[in-house]
Amino acid sequence: MGENIVDSWNIQKYHRGTYMEIEDEIAIEFALTVVIQGEEYATMICSPSALEELVIGFLASEALIRSYEDIQYIQLDSESGFAYVELFTDLPERSYGRTKRFIGSCCGKSREFYFDQDVKTAKTIMKKHVLSVQQVFTLMDTFQQHSEDFKRTGGVHQAALANRNELLYKAVDIGRHNALDKVYGYLLKNQISRREKQIVFSGRISSEVLVKVSKIGIGTLLSPSAPTDLALRLAEDLNITTVGFIRQNRLNVYTGQSYIQEEPPLIDIR
Amino acid sequence: MGENIVDSWNIQKYHRGTYMEIEDEIAIEFALTVVIQGEEYATMICSPSALEELVIGFLASEALIRSYEDIQYIQLDSESGFAYVELFTDLPERSYGRTKRFIGSCCGKSREFYFDQDVKTAKTIMKKHVLSVQQVFTLMDTFQQHSEDFKRTGGVHQAALANRNELLYKAVDIGRHNALDKVYGYLLKNQISRREKQIVFSGRISSEVLVKVSKIGIGTLLSPSAPTDLALRLAEDLNITTVGFIRQNRLNVYTGQSYIQEEPPLIDIR
Repeated sequence: MGENIVDSWNIQKYHRGTYMEIEDEIAIEFALTVVIQGEEYATMICSPSALEELVIGFLASEALIRSYEDIQYIQLDSESGFAYVELFTDLPERSYGRTKRFIGSCCGKSREFYFDQDVKTAKTIMKKHVLSVQQVFTLMDTFQQHSEDFKRTGGVHQAALANRNELLYKAVDIGRHNALDKVYGYLLKNQISRREKQIVFSGRISSEVLVKVSKIGIGTLLSPSAPTDLALRLAEDLNITTVGFIRQNRLNVYTGQSYIQEEPPLIDIR
Repeated sequence: MGENIVDSWNIQKYHRGTYMEIEDEIAIEFALTVVIQGEEYATMICSPSALEELVIGFLASEALIRSYEDIQYIQLDSESGFAYVELFTDLPERSYGRTKRFIGSCCGKSREFYFDQDVKTAKTIMKKHVLSVQQVFTLMDTFQQHSEDFKRTGGVHQAALANRNELLYKAVDIGRHNALDKVYGYLLKNQISRREKQIVFSGRISSEVLVKVSKIGIGTLLSPSAPTDLALRLAEDLNITTVGFIRQNRLNVYTGQSYIQEEPPLIDIR
């Protein structure tokens, strides 16, 4: 990981009948306040790693930027936990309706989103590709092999960007959304093609996670955890392949069943 | 659980070399919009169980009520997902500063909260009690024994209210905050004393979870998962005993070490 996202804490540990005081490692919660064109926009509680990627991904998730070129600069003050952002574009007027219910329709399909922000930014995936069951297992194995911080502290989520055969980037964060935003920021900053990529994610596939993946514009989501019904309905609408419960030689394909095949694909379904 | 919080979905399941289509159970995501004195206040994404408890706990968490008696009525429309609330008290003017950073001080101690809402409602625990290691294991065993929905769907959080020896109430929800709000609502509705009670919680101990437990006013938090550093600093400030990683004959006591003892207590520390 490189960056230090854990701290130490003195604990009483009870293990098989023995009670002892030891020093344990725990995940750091870090407050990052994003100031855009001089205005305090939001405070995120996050792990203090990949902060620039986090800010870029957050700006894109909030539909404040469309590409990395929309950013004039990001100045990070990691001591005090502030990120000062200048954009080339104007900041849209703040809508305070984020928690209001919204039933929207987009891309010619009627679709229910709970928050209007999401309607503007969720994208239906147009190009799809096939993965073999073995490729899915290999990606999940690699994803979980390098989980030092997770194993050490048990307190962080992980998200990774992968092509068919390997992980390109992995982010860790105490917040599930932040981990995904870091991946989004990495992709934008490095102008990586979304073609034939997947998101590997450690947590549960909720509708919020699904919407985030569609915002990133990636068509395949792999997770060792379970999905919810709304996430799956959105996944069908947004044309995202979802594979869950990927654990030791088993997996469940919830949506996009024809894109996960037993044998390695000879040719892609388009 | 009684109420139905799961739905079925046709999946492709790959298990030890065999690929088959089966029907699987997945957690339902339900949108509940809370309307207070005719004004749409918030929409929560939740599991459709214990909705009245959820609304009561949410109102208390938001500092809109102090006790169950502040509620004139709650009218639930579970078909359309609306809860209509009338309070005896006036609705405070909406503050849109929820995401703004806030450094507050309260109860004579300087203390950092990230959101000003929390300063008003987090309570320092004044009365403490002792639990034995064995009591902690017994509570966690019971908590996990009755986890049918979690086992079936892998997609829900659980929170329970317990006395020293048994669970009094258990809530499940796809949202960690909702599970805790349901416990809070149950406690308020049934006017249960907070004395010598604990919260058992399935998820990670983040600062948000810790603040929620302090709002409920319970002094002991038990979890099979890990805490974060900020959660532990808040736990020390707010005088909450936190026990994590409770798993098969082991546990870690992070704060309030003197309140978890190897032998059953003869007399309480006050």
